[in-house]
Amino acid sequence: MAESTAPADAVPADANCRAAGEGHHHGYVPEAAAINNRLRRVEGQVRGLQRMVDDEAYCIDIITQISAAKAALDRVATLLLKDHLNHCVADAARSGNTEEMTAKVAEATDAVTRLLKS
Amino acid sequence: MAESTAPADAVPADANCRAAGEGHHHGYVPEAAAINNRLRRVEGQVRGLQRMVDDEAYCIDIITQISAAKAALDRVATLLLKDHLNHCVADAARSGNTEEMTAKVAEATDAVTRLLKS
Amino acid sequence: MAESTAPADAVPADANCRAAGEGHHHGYVPEAAAINNRLRRVEGQVRGLQRMVDDEAYCIDIITQISAAKAALDRVATLLLKDHLNHCVADAARSGNTEEMTAKVAEATDAVTRLLKS
Amino acid sequence: MAESTAPADAVPADANCRAAGEGHHHGYVPEAAAINNRLRRVEGQVRGLQRMVDDEAYCIDIITQISAAKAALDRVATLLLKDHLNHCVADAARSGNTEEMTAKVAEATDAVTRLLKS
Repeated sequence: MAESTAPADAVPADANCRAAGEGHHHGYVPEAAAINNRLRRVEGQVRGLQRMVDDEAYCIDIITQISAAKAALDRVATLLLKDHLNHCVADAARSGNTEEMTAKVAEATDAVTRLLKS
Repeated sequence: MAESTAPADAVPADANCRAAGEGHHHGYVPEAAAINNRLRRVEGQVRGLQRMVDDEAYCIDIITQISAAKAALDRVATLLLKDHLNHCVADAARSGNTEEMTAKVAEATDAVTRLLKS
Repeated sequence: MAESTAPADAVPADANCRAAGEGHHHGYVPEAAAINNRLRRVEGQVRGLQRMVDDEAYCIDIITQISAAKAALDRVATLLLKDHLNHCVADAARSGNTEEMTAKVAEATDAVTRLLKS
Repeated sequence: MAESTAPADAVPADANCRAAGEGHHHGYVPEAAAINNRLRRVEGQVRGLQRMVDDEAYCIDIITQISAAKAALDRVATLLLKDHLNHCVADAARSGNTEEMTAKVAEATDAVTRLLKS
């Protein structure tokens, strides 16, 4: 441990996507601006919902706009999932570390399960 | 417009919940402050998502927070639905105008269908 | 009306929709055949899924068919919800028993919450 | 086997998971029996729903059982997704065929999108 020269391959396998190893970027980083644009639009939708409530808009119309905001969040989530599979999971597969890849896949499908329940 | 005698009962039946007839309030109005508190929290969650993206948070953690925001929106939607059924639909039922009530129920279940698809 | 030993208001309030009071039918009963036709089609879809697994069909194609079966179940659920609101909830509203109506509405929105989580 | 003019590596890359190349199995095949057990239970749930309708069960109770059947289908779908990512997508990643892997990932996230809408 002491005097470790810490070669690249000493980086723990699970640092692949989780840790901010120098030069490492999550799959979505090149698309971060586009993703944040989408999230800002969702933020605008949620502020719009508050105005609808203030203006005593029709209940059903508010619920319809809630559906639209949820669908927009789902779109962001599936974009993040796609980037995650294309980068973090694919890197784990290529690394030959099956245990790590299986853990990453389990984590991704658990995230899908949570999305499906929301 | 001028000289209108516009008695209260001249308001078309479907104005029951949709139109802002004087003295009429949607079912959720007494709870508007509580609903907007929830929506402000959702707005905060969506801003938190943007910070997570800026900070290059782990993809899966962002997706998990998206699930939380969606669940919070579902909670607002079901509160609005409950108020709508307790007030607008119930008023329509009591009014004896079956056609109007059936239309309101169809509208509410269509809103549920949209929620289920989001 | 005269000499009746069983006045309408002797029926316990919650018998409105839940109990099988003589002559009482749930809202969906006139549509029971149509609903069971839909459910039989869903049953066929689920058997089809088993055949796909036996035939080693492509994973993604099976997931797509699962989505179709879930959507068909949602359609049955919203039909039942519509009938419930049109009959059981509306009857409760007309009966003037606000407590019962509120309980029925709470029950219906709780059922929607469970649907949204599935 | 002998004199085969079609060595394993002549199988087109996209046959990886889709085609039934000899010796190839989809990710879920070792779990096919467990998956079909789950699907048979869902089939039983859907037949149970039909009996509930025949017996004029309470609308809300039927909707609750529909939620249970949908959740069971979601569980099957996420199991298939997990196997798909662990096998088909991982194989594509390891093969070095980025185009194929990207296509498989897009297909998987599209399947998740359909599940989220159902």
